[in-house]
Amino acid sequence: MATERIMMAHGSGGSMTKALIDEVFLPAFGQDASTQGDDSFTAVLESAPAHLVLSTDTFVVTPRFFPGGDIGRLAVCGTVNDVATSGACVLYLSCGFVIEEGLPLDDLRAVVCSMAAAAREAGVAIVTGDTKVVERGGCDGLYINTTGVGVIERGTALSGRDCRPGDKVLLSGTLGDHGVAVMACREGLGLVTTVESDVAPLNGLVSAVLREAPHVRCFRDPTRGGLASTLNELAVQSAVAIEVEEALIPVKDQVRGCCDLLGLDVLQVANEGKMVCIVPEDEAGAALAAMRTSRYGENAAIIGEVLERPAAAMPPVTVRTELGTRRIMDMPVGEQLPRIC
Amino acid sequence: MATERIMMAHGSGGSMTKALIDEVFLPAFGQDASTQGDDSFTAVLESAPAHLVLSTDTFVVTPRFFPGGDIGRLAVCGTVNDVATSGACVLYLSCGFVIEEGLPLDDLRAVVCSMAAAAREAGVAIVTGDTKVVERGGCDGLYINTTGVGVIERGTALSGRDCRPGDKVLLSGTLGDHGVAVMACREGLGLVTTVESDVAPLNGLVSAVLREAPHVRCFRDPTRGGLASTLNELAVQSAVAIEVEEALIPVKDQVRGCCDLLGLDVLQVANEGKMVCIVPEDEAGAALAAMRTSRYGENAAIIGEVLERPAAAMPPVTVRTELGTRRIMDMPVGEQLPRIC
Repeated sequence: MATERIMMAHGSGGSMTKALIDEVFLPAFGQDASTQGDDSFTAVLESAPAHLVLSTDTFVVTPRFFPGGDIGRLAVCGTVNDVATSGACVLYLSCGFVIEEGLPLDDLRAVVCSMAAAAREAGVAIVTGDTKVVERGGCDGLYINTTGVGVIERGTALSGRDCRPGDKVLLSGTLGDHGVAVMACREGLGLVTTVESDVAPLNGLVSAVLREAPHVRCFRDPTRGGLASTLNELAVQSAVAIEVEEALIPVKDQVRGCCDLLGLDVLQVANEGKMVCIVPEDEAGAALAAMRTSRYGENAAIIGEVLERPAAAMPPVTVRTELGTRRIMDMPVGEQLPRIC
Repeated sequence: MATERIMMAHGSGGSMTKALIDEVFLPAFGQDASTQGDDSFTAVLESAPAHLVLSTDTFVVTPRFFPGGDIGRLAVCGTVNDVATSGACVLYLSCGFVIEEGLPLDDLRAVVCSMAAAAREAGVAIVTGDTKVVERGGCDGLYINTTGVGVIERGTALSGRDCRPGDKVLLSGTLGDHGVAVMACREGLGLVTTVESDVAPLNGLVSAVLREAPHVRCFRDPTRGGLASTLNELAVQSAVAIEVEEALIPVKDQVRGCCDLLGLDVLQVANEGKMVCIVPEDEAGAALAAMRTSRYGENAAIIGEVLERPAAAMPPVTVRTELGTRRIMDMPVGEQLPRIC
């Protein structure tokens, strides 16, 4: 690792996060790094008769309350969506709180109510929890870990290694809403934008797509690091190239404006209520229709396709711009938006 | 709740923690508070054919490295022991890290290695993880959440509601080692004591006891709030009284000395490698023998018994002192040792 101290960039969901997981955690815990992806590591637990899926995430977003959601809704939806990407039916969540001394109890109540509402909406049960309190200055108000358990009732877990040339790339809606809503709130841009976070549970959308398009290759939720991280990870895992059409990617005008103002690349901005789905061409239409009739999927679009990878040295993910040129969609290296989830 | 702001005492494992869980978390998540105990809430997940057990805990101990262990070993053992108390076979752990910017990477490596070693010793697999980094001052170095999944292969989960008058109270070893080791380290008492934390995985000890004493009522690990919290919770859950003999409780001389020096009641000090076990009288000898031949159980003792509860207004847990008098063993109200786990 290039540096011997933790930097904010290690938490970015970009390549430094991946390096940290690959070099520090996976070797220690005996996982095979090459089978992993995304900004965390998730495993399928083989336990007869069904496969269990377990996924964990800690939420440190600041501010705790932002347009469209709060840390509680985020903590439930984030883990529900992580488990759902495997194709599992999400059943149970645990929650672990680290609370700073002095936190107004009404804040905690509001967050917990929000978690309960999100869990009801997702149809999952929060079944175990723990609280720790640290002194003032010991944490920034409130951190929440959620761990989700799901069951795969048919077949095996979906894998990011199964993308094939010719497959279509689907995106369930507009990009960048969560990151921009949180950043605008933090930077005091409330007057120039009314963008709300897209934070939402997508297990229903995933199930609907799987019913109509049973040969879906994989799902991924483009959170930290955005669409750019997600597509780069999939391309590497499957040893393919991916090309998307800029004109087909749904982005709200306000979000585009804020990204320009803040100097952000919308393709690298975090989403918390969007799914990327890779589907064989002959099921792409059915998958798209299923997304569009699901809650949170009305703006779904086919945004690109999987290609042969011409050479390992070539950048695996490209964007065809509205001018007809091609540009590389890089994986973000470090921190673009700290504490976004 | 008496106060409307979070206080350190809300994290103590005493009655204020219980109030926080009962009043804030359980109502929101639809759990029945009366069926719960301990300083966190744990649930048995009914999932055919075996019962799943899920338990979560976040570790914020300071300092990160202390005599006898570190936050990594603690994070693995703490959750392994929580799941084991239900009688489940512990299979999988998740881990969620919150890391402060600037943490020396060697510290993180040492902690992760320690987690891996503890998991190997316990025979559990760490299968999923996540890392978040917060800016300097955003957390105190390193917090680790672990969530454990276990399976109950025979019968149902053990419950704290099944203690009966006549049952014996077993303790697997000396009290107070963890709390005193951490406090001595923090207070710079390294010169006057060489006490080490007892942090250890006890799933092997629990299995050994269950093999020899199949009618065990329940296990509890007396962590935050110590033996006093554990016995008070069990007495309330089972509507019984419990009396222990002070002379039978194993405590190291150094630990007793440090408790006197620091003004601590050893019965309220946290342990991280001890089990309390309630056993019907006719299996108590077999259970004790099984503990004593297990690793980490060589100093096990029968320390008391379960009695009829004379009246609800009477204090449920009492200690018979070496002078022959009786005193009340109260549940700690607030914070005795903050950040002990």
